[in-house]
Amino acid sequence: MVVREKILDTVISCFKRHGAKRLDTPAFELKEMLTEKYGEDSMLIYDLKDQGGELLSLRYDLTVPFARYLAMNKLKKMKRYHVGKVWRRESPTIVQGRYREFCQCDFDIAGQFDPMIPDAECLKIICEILSGLQLGHFLIKVNDRRIIDGMFAACGVPENKFRAICSSIDKLDKMSWNDVRYEMVTKKSLAPEVADRIGEYIQRCGGVSLIEQLLQDPRLSQNKQILEGLEDMKLLFEYLTLFGIADKMSFDLSLARGLDYYTGVIYEAVLQTPSQTGEESLSMGSVAAGGRYDGLVGMFNPKGQKVPCVGLSIGVERIFSIVEQRMKVSDEKVRTTETQVFVATPQKNFLQERLKLIAELWNAGIKAEMLYKNNPKLLSQLHYCENTGIQLMVIIGEQEMKGGVIKLRSVASREEVAIKREHLVAEIQKRLSDS
Amino acid sequence: MVVREKILDTVISCFKRHGAKRLDTPAFELKEMLTEKYGEDSMLIYDLKDQGGELLSLRYDLTVPFARYLAMNKLKKMKRYHVGKVWRRESPTIVQGRYREFCQCDFDIAGQFDPMIPDAECLKIICEILSGLQLGHFLIKVNDRRIIDGMFAACGVPENKFRAICSSIDKLDKMSWNDVRYEMVTKKSLAPEVADRIGEYIQRCGGVSLIEQLLQDPRLSQNKQILEGLEDMKLLFEYLTLFGIADKMSFDLSLARGLDYYTGVIYEAVLQTPSQTGEESLSMGSVAAGGRYDGLVGMFNPKGQKVPCVGLSIGVERIFSIVEQRMKVSDEKVRTTETQVFVATPQKNFLQERLKLIAELWNAGIKAEMLYKNNPKLLSQLHYCENTGIQLMVIIGEQEMKGGVIKLRSVASREEVAIKREHLVAEIQKRLSDS
Repeated sequence: MVVREKILDTVISCFKRHGAKRLDTPAFELKEMLTEKYGEDSMLIYDLKDQGGELLSLRYDLTVPFARYLAMNKLKKMKRYHVGKVWRRESPTIVQGRYREFCQCDFDIAGQFDPMIPDAECLKIICEILSGLQLGHFLIKVNDRRIIDGMFAACGVPENKFRAICSSIDKLDKMSWNDVRYEMVTKKSLAPEVADRIGEYIQRCGGVSLIEQLLQDPRLSQNKQILEGLEDMKLLFEYLTLFGIADKMSFDLSLARGLDYYTGVIYEAVLQTPSQTGEESLSMGSVAAGGRYDGLVGMFNPKGQKVPCVGLSIGVERIFSIVEQRMKVSDEKVRTTETQVFVATPQKNFLQERLKLIAELWNAGIKAEMLYKNNPKLLSQLHYCENTGIQLMVIIGEQEMKGGVIKLRSVASREEVAIKREHLVAEIQKRLSDS
Repeated sequence: MVVREKILDTVISCFKRHGAKRLDTPAFELKEMLTEKYGEDSMLIYDLKDQGGELLSLRYDLTVPFARYLAMNKLKKMKRYHVGKVWRRESPTIVQGRYREFCQCDFDIAGQFDPMIPDAECLKIICEILSGLQLGHFLIKVNDRRIIDGMFAACGVPENKFRAICSSIDKLDKMSWNDVRYEMVTKKSLAPEVADRIGEYIQRCGGVSLIEQLLQDPRLSQNKQILEGLEDMKLLFEYLTLFGIADKMSFDLSLARGLDYYTGVIYEAVLQTPSQTGEESLSMGSVAAGGRYDGLVGMFNPKGQKVPCVGLSIGVERIFSIVEQRMKVSDEKVRTTETQVFVATPQKNFLQERLKLIAELWNAGIKAEMLYKNNPKLLSQLHYCENTGIQLMVIIGEQEMKGGVIKLRSVASREEVAIKREHLVAEIQKRLSDS
């Protein structure tokens, strides 16, 4: 939990740095709101039992609820972040960092703006977060739905097969091209020559030079949609260069992203390094992803009024698994509490004094603990500090009472000093701010 | 949301000050785990639709999941806090601050300890949080299930009616004694003379002197359970006095708390002040509550092994409603973002420079925004700062480019100074740390 909190802190402070306000939506949505938004994944939605009232489902992600919120409140513009739980009916395979309940961290920019500026900011945010978390080298694959769809059309894929072929291509990170080709041809009845034409393109990735190549490609450059996508991609790379992050990007024609609602730029970040020992390779799939979805808000608006949106989602659960696995390898220990001072006594019948003392510390904002025993042994009090990583001990006994002092002990060095009772809080605060 | 976050910050930092670690449990529990834990409230639980797999329900509170967690992991000791959503099938009456989905903030101490020490700490925590939130005067009503049950027995309530009569008494904060008496006699078939005997006691509240009185009471002092409860109450008040919070407490025989699982001390904090205008009285019910539940963990353990627990729950939704209402009255405005600097230009064709500049600020950890337009008007950039409360503007134009400087403008005072480009980040950081 402590590691989780640190990761979330990094993510949230980055979202705030980019001017987003926090938004929270309910865990359940009307069942009808979620249908037909997720393509093949719709069967993973949890429904609530009909106990009277509306039919409800648990949210599957934070994007659809955000779009619903914008439409309902007739908002045309918003930059928000949302950290919350989502639920998916998968059999949990914990090794891969996928659960049935998990936390999502989303940042989205809604509104009609000049092209690619918010899109570039989303990619900058992913870079800042992944760098900030010190996960090692990463790469962000970028593509555009218009380029994919245009390429399908140019290669001769029938339009009613676009989404199905998209799903197949999406598996290229787990399957070889031959297997994907086999699926497209046999399961999805795509003509083999069409599959081969697609294969030529989707095995290519690169940067600005690839964009230029494709702009020259006789088959693709006929298609208006592709041209739009490629021109925007060029502009995006210009902005990414100004942001100093173009070297982290790969324009990758194989990136498809299964979700139905994307309409423009899409992206996905993957880690590139194996774990530090070099033995276990951590192929954890994507750690962040997102894209542009200009049509989703309109689906919730009775008049179909569109609000263009672009956003990203940080895969904190996967990141958490990775960090945890690394910590196991390096045998790092983490404190689970933040207690700064322990109030102890070596003698019997000092409960009252300990209670008075600890209340003083709490009132001064100092994080303090004591054992809930009338007469604890000094040794068990020392052990408690060592086991939970508390650095300072405040000791009160008969001798101290008589002298009007309190002993302050450093757990690590075992040094003890006597401090006047009335100076204790100030002295502790000084030590804590020094350390 | 900003107000919410501040309230949650105060609550969580208090929980940490008392040495609790954070714990998180899933939103759903096995349906069977939640049955027979909540008395009359069980019908408010949300069940999930049977889509194969286990029958699941959404959690109703955080206490039962905590007890289930302790039992499952065979933990005998734990001090944890949990901030999370819970769900109840109520028709939402937003004025009272009750919703179908709401956030709960719980702190609990599990383990076998010397009597009343953890219980006193829970009350101290409630005091620290309510004082910290500056909600005005508050009072914490304290009672003990053993005293209630013993009083029922001594007054002649049949044992199978204990819980039902408890529920009736729990309504005394919303209904008059006469109405409660009527409910007990007619709906719950309690003998009128028994009801009157109860009435004598539950209309009394006070401090240590009331405890002494009851210890002398000929009818009550026969009952072993009551004596135990009263002795512990005396001890509790001793510790509360040492903590300096006894004046906030009222030993109140009418406090019953409906939930089935309490076995010892119970408490509930109520605010005492009307809103500052004096016109609308804010009777918001309890803002914090809790108690001891020594039997709950054992219900989840196959061998029935008990782990004594005591805890508290902060009613953050109600507190949020109160703070919001007060802010409405006093017409306070809250910023919804934390943006520190706005990057502006008075001229056309400066998008590239703005992008480079804002990336520099972000990389230095400065919270910065700009408009997502190629050529925004200076006036709309100024308005954006005023509307969102951004204090500093960084302005770049042709003149500045030539001189190798950037203009830094204070939005409030309208003062502008030119700063060398290479000193900009340092200068902004200095200003931000000064303010």
